[in-house]
Amino acid sequence: MKIIELKQDIFKENEVTADIVRSELAAEDVLMINVMSSPGSGKTSVLKRTVEELKGRVRAGVMECDIDASVDAETMQKAGAYSIQLHTGGMCHMDAAMTKQGLLEMPLKDLDVIFIENVGNLVCPAEFDTGAHISITILSVPEGDDKPAKYPLMYQVCDLVLVNKTDTEAVFDFDRNKMEERVHRCNPKAQIIYISAKTGDGFEQWISWLTDRLERRGQIWQ
Amino acid sequence: MKIIELKQDIFKENEVTADIVRSELAAEDVLMINVMSSPGSGKTSVLKRTVEELKGRVRAGVMECDIDASVDAETMQKAGAYSIQLHTGGMCHMDAAMTKQGLLEMPLKDLDVIFIENVGNLVCPAEFDTGAHISITILSVPEGDDKPAKYPLMYQVCDLVLVNKTDTEAVFDFDRNKMEERVHRCNPKAQIIYISAKTGDGFEQWISWLTDRLERRGQIWQ
Repeated sequence: MKIIELKQDIFKENEVTADIVRSELAAEDVLMINVMSSPGSGKTSVLKRTVEELKGRVRAGVMECDIDASVDAETMQKAGAYSIQLHTGGMCHMDAAMTKQGLLEMPLKDLDVIFIENVGNLVCPAEFDTGAHISITILSVPEGDDKPAKYPLMYQVCDLVLVNKTDTEAVFDFDRNKMEERVHRCNPKAQIIYISAKTGDGFEQWISWLTDRLERRGQIWQ
Repeated sequence: MKIIELKQDIFKENEVTADIVRSELAAEDVLMINVMSSPGSGKTSVLKRTVEELKGRVRAGVMECDIDASVDAETMQKAGAYSIQLHTGGMCHMDAAMTKQGLLEMPLKDLDVIFIENVGNLVCPAEFDTGAHISITILSVPEGDDKPAKYPLMYQVCDLVLVNKTDTEAVFDFDRNKMEERVHRCNPKAQIIYISAKTGDGFEQWISWLTDRLERRGQIWQ
């Protein structure tokens, strides 16, 4: 019985494109951050508040990736980011070729950072390198502290876990220690920051993490 | 704010490849059937019993598509089908290019029918034409009668719904009328056959549906 490995071709092609995207952005001095999470964990609210806090200091762009809605890009535009909407048209994730298409529409010379708001999905987006320099996974308290154990790849591929909706912790049985242990079992290097996009709690730490990366982005793409 | 439609390119390319796959199979007089369902609904057991019932009459091949397991292809080989294992390596669905790669390993001249056992997933496999002539969705009783309402595309793209595990109907609150209504709201032309891969119930009707399509496959690819 023959076993045929399909993945090599598909993923290799995507990785090549992702590396090209990363270099092209580095040449323009733009840092790209891929933001992933399951649907409803607050990607849009986190990015909206982030863009508002960066205003006047950092020029931000957002690529909103949705199967076919267009609401989020308008929210981002109002919050002060250069924003475009990508319709994946049924695709459950972004890949590097799709990101490349989106970047053609972004004014790279006028931006310091671009956020990709990936499709809400804990499985497929983790499989595909988008060409971003940094990946962030948002986990919201109501989803439960077991998500890193159930979707390990999503936690393996991220540099930072933003735990959102901490304002609701009183009403959920969410064990921070267990969650942290599960995250670090997948990825010992992952950093974890607790935030609430609603109250602004933890944003000081998150914005400082982000501006630190932005300031030394020259090192990131070396 | 710009809205960029990514899907056209990706899906158009896949559709072109799917049409090529369909024609190439027609030229070899082989009917290909794409079998989709969520994980655990019994795709493997249904195909195993189907292959056994066809033995001696119809030469069957099976392409087992899994993220990286290889158990199912061995089961199929033992049941009497020519069987290969495709590893999608993290991809949550099959597309036409992947199918094409698999078909290179199948002895088309010695087969009448090829089943694709797609990746267990109710979302993404429905988006991608595999190049099959017929698509079947398996819904198992324990999953509930509401699935066609929650995953409409999966029911829109199929020609036949096989409702499996009817032997467990006594212990589940599964309403056949509601389910049928929901299937036909998505797809008025979809046919529905009730089966149990465990007891063999309904297999007479399913095998007769299948052999009827096989006998008049010349019309299908016209």
